[in-house]
Amino acid sequence: MPGIRGPSDYSQEPPRHPCLAINSKEPFNAEPPRQVLVSSYVTPVEFFYKRNHGPIPVVDDVERYSISVTGLIDNPKQLFMKDIRNLPKYNVTATLQCAGNRRTAMSKTKTVKGVGWDVCALGNAVWGGAKLVDVLELVGIPKLTSATWSGGKHVEFISIDKCKEENGGPYKASIALSQATNPAADVLLAYEMNGEPLNRDHGYPLRVVVPGVIGARSVKWLDSINIIAEECQGFFMQKDYKMFPPSVNWDNIKWSTRRPLMDFPVQSAICSLEDVTIVKHGKITVKGYAVSGGGRGIERVDVSIDGGKTWVEASRYQKTGTPYNPDDESSDRWAWVIFEATADIPTSTEIVAKAVDTAANVQPENVESIWNLRGVLNTSWHRVQFRIGKSNM
Amino acid sequence: MPGIRGPSDYSQEPPRHPCLAINSKEPFNAEPPRQVLVSSYVTPVEFFYKRNHGPIPVVDDVERYSISVTGLIDNPKQLFMKDIRNLPKYNVTATLQCAGNRRTAMSKTKTVKGVGWDVCALGNAVWGGAKLVDVLELVGIPKLTSATWSGGKHVEFISIDKCKEENGGPYKASIALSQATNPAADVLLAYEMNGEPLNRDHGYPLRVVVPGVIGARSVKWLDSINIIAEECQGFFMQKDYKMFPPSVNWDNIKWSTRRPLMDFPVQSAICSLEDVTIVKHGKITVKGYAVSGGGRGIERVDVSIDGGKTWVEASRYQKTGTPYNPDDESSDRWAWVIFEATADIPTSTEIVAKAVDTAANVQPENVESIWNLRGVLNTSWHRVQFRIGKSNM
Repeated sequence: MPGIRGPSDYSQEPPRHPCLAINSKEPFNAEPPRQVLVSSYVTPVEFFYKRNHGPIPVVDDVERYSISVTGLIDNPKQLFMKDIRNLPKYNVTATLQCAGNRRTAMSKTKTVKGVGWDVCALGNAVWGGAKLVDVLELVGIPKLTSATWSGGKHVEFISIDKCKEENGGPYKASIALSQATNPAADVLLAYEMNGEPLNRDHGYPLRVVVPGVIGARSVKWLDSINIIAEECQGFFMQKDYKMFPPSVNWDNIKWSTRRPLMDFPVQSAICSLEDVTIVKHGKITVKGYAVSGGGRGIERVDVSIDGGKTWVEASRYQKTGTPYNPDDESSDRWAWVIFEATADIPTSTEIVAKAVDTAANVQPENVESIWNLRGVLNTSWHRVQFRIGKSNM
Repeated sequence: MPGIRGPSDYSQEPPRHPCLAINSKEPFNAEPPRQVLVSSYVTPVEFFYKRNHGPIPVVDDVERYSISVTGLIDNPKQLFMKDIRNLPKYNVTATLQCAGNRRTAMSKTKTVKGVGWDVCALGNAVWGGAKLVDVLELVGIPKLTSATWSGGKHVEFISIDKCKEENGGPYKASIALSQATNPAADVLLAYEMNGEPLNRDHGYPLRVVVPGVIGARSVKWLDSINIIAEECQGFFMQKDYKMFPPSVNWDNIKWSTRRPLMDFPVQSAICSLEDVTIVKHGKITVKGYAVSGGGRGIERVDVSIDGGKTWVEASRYQKTGTPYNPDDESSDRWAWVIFEATADIPTSTEIVAKAVDTAANVQPENVESIWNLRGVLNTSWHRVQFRIGKSNM
């Protein structure tokens, strides 16, 4: 495509904020400090986690940039940015979370494979763009379609980027056509993040945002959309981002026995404390985030200062400073909530948080029962150890 | 309404199968034996749990029976059975589960209030009827509507039955209009159960079936449908079937702080063993059910014979004898799976089962963390204690 380069080296990476913790330099994978993450409801772009599988593409000439929509449809089309911008624009507040969030802690049980992440491989942004359902109507696929006449049942998104060779070419992923054509699923082709054009790290000029689903399906730097019969056979769908039972190891793994991860389960983490924090005697304020996948909201967040024997319910904030109200029309069903609880400094030196979602799903108490060799979806109760002494907060 | 009696005493109850365990006689609440429950994928009507809040209504003359559809709509209508039958008929296989399933075990931690249930307050049936979305189109509400012009946002279902007086008249409940008008949500006005007309215990002649949602919202013996601005203010929506944190007791409860339960979380239970079973040395076959709410399928079921230290994955069966296949077009997203695992008789005498759903949600390890004063949604790992000796199986 003219005006587009998917560089095969890391010589043209964009600038990044120096406060990010870099978990992998090439490809660039980094997360913000805990305290910074929960200091705002909408995560500033520079502090939004960066998750890449190759060098960042360069799109010089956005006017000449286009995507193709092809596959099992009657009328394949090439769409330019003006075609996407001509469709109704939606702003969707959605939290994207890497399936590997909190992976480092899972390795404490037994080593897992994958980029190490603390608890900040997620962010909450206002994504602006066209609904995928409207784009698909341009090629003749109506709303609420499970299968096209020619047998298409999945929508594959293919990136411009140049992934590492072992991964079989450009990054790609798919979602079910029924989700793609459901207006309520809010799947976007986004060209804005927090009111600004996407930056290069986050998919400039156009990316997919699949709310409520692990970040790996929200393909950046979109090159084409392919309507296919079976789900995408790419590496990251078929040989990665799947969850296996604790008993499966690298010798007995059978990738085809599991489905690709989609909706993520209920998650929370404390972000106002690190495991090294020293706190003063007295009261302590515990702040963190809670989020669930699939459009399930957060019902409540519990915080314990005695290792889980007793719990206090945290206050929840959605829009910064606004108490959470599930009946509010403008409630952001795809977004996290920021929680806050004040507690007496306990005699024990562990604080625990866990969330419950609107379907009454809970986080697992121990990481051991959900340990898996790829280290995905560590949603166990979040525990922070700290010391009592002269405060460093 | 002519031909309809909602008797105020229990003199006209229908016959029931003598093998049911009766948890409450008036109103009649009963569940089947564990072994019987998992002996078939589709639960026979006579073994389907019975959950009532009052005497069973009598509808003598189904031709004169009608429902009214009214409230915040332009064209209220009275609909007779022939009008409902004239709409396209759908068969939906869905598991209905009482929110109080497994309540008795929760009381072992600390007493809870409500009808005591073992693990069989659920059943899986093929429900036949019209889609609610089609019924609502008859009164001018299009598909995928979140709000009517006149401000209707919830769909209230009101029963014919005569509930106990403290509950404020007939049984009622509501769901969001967006769910009611979403064809993919498969909400039915059902007149058939397993291919036969509904029987009286299950809502004859017409009931609501809300797949993936706690049974309490699937109102039986439908009298009317009311489009309303706020969710139903009935007792069972506002002062029951809500889940509170373990810290809330009958002195400090504030009902309005919680939303009514809807989607249920991932659940499983072993049904081939009772806590009193004596098993022989050798191999043991463990059989049970697993189900999740909100259309989330079951990803896997794990069984442990060492108290949760190691796990084996169970085989899953959907249609009787058919291995579970999540990609199968005919997969029943609203239905349970029957699982089976064979294990050596352990040295310990406890078998544990837990399930994972397709959104990677898991069951909580211990009941203490989800204990709540109403005893709803006990989805903790299911543990069965047994003795080793001369088998009584």
